[in-house]
Amino acid sequence: MTKLKNDRFLRALLREPVDVTPVWMMRQAGRYLPEYRATREKAGNFMALCKTPGLATEVTLQPLERFPLDAAILFSDILTIPDAMGLGLYFAEGEGPRFEQPLRTEKDIRRLGVPDIEEDLGYVIAAVSMIHRELDGRVPLIGFSGSPWTLATYMVEGGSTKEFAKVKGMLYEQPGLMHQLLDVLARTVIAYLNAQIDAGAEAVMIFDTWGGVLTTRDYREFSLRYMQRIINGLTRENEGRKVPVIIFSKGGSQWLEDQAASGADALGLDWTLDIGLARERVGSRVALQGNMDPCVLYASPERIREEVAFILQSYGKGSGHVFNLGHGIHQHVEPEHAAAFVEAVHDLSAPYHQ
Amino acid sequence: MTKLKNDRFLRALLREPVDVTPVWMMRQAGRYLPEYRATREKAGNFMALCKTPGLATEVTLQPLERFPLDAAILFSDILTIPDAMGLGLYFAEGEGPRFEQPLRTEKDIRRLGVPDIEEDLGYVIAAVSMIHRELDGRVPLIGFSGSPWTLATYMVEGGSTKEFAKVKGMLYEQPGLMHQLLDVLARTVIAYLNAQIDAGAEAVMIFDTWGGVLTTRDYREFSLRYMQRIINGLTRENEGRKVPVIIFSKGGSQWLEDQAASGADALGLDWTLDIGLARERVGSRVALQGNMDPCVLYASPERIREEVAFILQSYGKGSGHVFNLGHGIHQHVEPEHAAAFVEAVHDLSAPYHQ
Repeated sequence: MTKLKNDRFLRALLREPVDVTPVWMMRQAGRYLPEYRATREKAGNFMALCKTPGLATEVTLQPLERFPLDAAILFSDILTIPDAMGLGLYFAEGEGPRFEQPLRTEKDIRRLGVPDIEEDLGYVIAAVSMIHRELDGRVPLIGFSGSPWTLATYMVEGGSTKEFAKVKGMLYEQPGLMHQLLDVLARTVIAYLNAQIDAGAEAVMIFDTWGGVLTTRDYREFSLRYMQRIINGLTRENEGRKVPVIIFSKGGSQWLEDQAASGADALGLDWTLDIGLARERVGSRVALQGNMDPCVLYASPERIREEVAFILQSYGKGSGHVFNLGHGIHQHVEPEHAAAFVEAVHDLSAPYHQ
Repeated sequence: MTKLKNDRFLRALLREPVDVTPVWMMRQAGRYLPEYRATREKAGNFMALCKTPGLATEVTLQPLERFPLDAAILFSDILTIPDAMGLGLYFAEGEGPRFEQPLRTEKDIRRLGVPDIEEDLGYVIAAVSMIHRELDGRVPLIGFSGSPWTLATYMVEGGSTKEFAKVKGMLYEQPGLMHQLLDVLARTVIAYLNAQIDAGAEAVMIFDTWGGVLTTRDYREFSLRYMQRIINGLTRENEGRKVPVIIFSKGGSQWLEDQAASGADALGLDWTLDIGLARERVGSRVALQGNMDPCVLYASPERIREEVAFILQSYGKGSGHVFNLGHGIHQHVEPEHAAAFVEAVHDLSAPYHQ
């Protein structure tokens, strides 16, 4: 077992005592960093960056060189899974992800199978191994996947969407077919995350970016149920250490109680809910990860510090909080502002852990 | 006072007994109707349609010819206000609204004033008068405005946005300046809605489309507070009849209790919250308007009927519910599906009012 030099992140996820509140940032390896843009340039395009373990490792580690972050997260994309299933992922310049073969017919869905992780997603697993080796216990490594529902939205729509017309049309009109799609995705995510855990991921996170566009009933049936099934199927221990699972349904703060009963160790929170109120609602069942509005990083370091202080105070004393943004860091944020954010969390949180 | 032949909508907003649950649809006069597309063609462009009272009246009345709706809503756009303030609204084909002169500097904001409603927004008021006359008491007419915060997002960003970087940058870094902008917008909305009420609007609705992107603290300070100020400034009675006010913060269901204390008569609900649970939370303080997912209209009439039945059952017995979609009807919905929706509400709701 790799000895971790800094295990604050894992301890907070399991609600064990920590010295200061751990912090990382969603999309911390990203376009706001000039060194990321340089590596991406070298790779040629975004998918080449994901598919080359050496380069994925390089960008994963970049933010750790700049900021005293308490976790690294695998650099990859949630759409590697549909790509491995044969949908042909590509990125149209300035337009986001697209699929060459979106799921249009019942036949398209019925012929989907769980891809061979080794063969079709081996580049991700190789990156996890390499990052884990390079980190050498400095901080834990987070593996991740999209949730089945979130992956399904892209696969049925053929890319990003604001209206969810096609995927919800299917959900409402052909719920059985939607369940079949979600089932094969859930089985794939289990195999995918277990392979990441085997390769060295010390925690995993499921991004349910579009869970929040569903009704309460449908969130439970079409999104949360499948995340729960994934949690039950995961290797929850690795080399004698528990592997915590974080689920994050963006826009889903109305369903925190349901999420807390899913078996996840921690819930991601977007910024729209007061974290103190969220803590009251979930009690000691789960840890919470979040939740500063990423737009605060456009303000001055002083203002960033103020907002960090407000969130720390709202959460209150004791462990169980991993500080983060409520969504990925934006492209046009100054790296110095990210530095001020990370520093403020460590500086201001010690009194809450005495 | 115009005698209303059908006052179900107003009665439900005031939680007075009704025979069946009233229903209308946000954006009911819109692109899903071929007759709307024909009138828009005749107008040349969207703003010409808004600015020609005869054509605005024509499209406002079109859905009432097709469906037994219980309310008409003024055909207009929330961005008429910034346009009247001199920002130069235009619509780039397929790209949504844009402003020629977005608010970029402190000076831009400091020189804004309340526009002369008669002079700069007279075309809207003329449309309200004409629609009111044409309706002749058939159903009530709803006037509307955007909320100050929602208008501010477009005015500062210069158009639609997904990230809200500029407007939130201002909110976080220059809160005083943001309050100055919201103040002039609130005073404008009061004058604008009062002119609509004077011209015949029997109820008014404030669309807070982007309230849900704020933190809890900022929602209260930068959005709800200004809607509350507007409600306090409105003429709440017209020809001896109470003029109900509906507020709708999309994505804001976590703040229902705050909204219920705002002085509004009714709250709009998007589809992500179970309406029965919403009713428990607000008690008898306000009526509720909503909240079927507009995507259900892509499914079959049978499935639409099922979803209507589910929502009616969730709300339960008694008045205080205006049925609606949780957001505007989509462009690619079949008009026959909208018909099935309206019919189902009237058909299935009678037992809840006995």
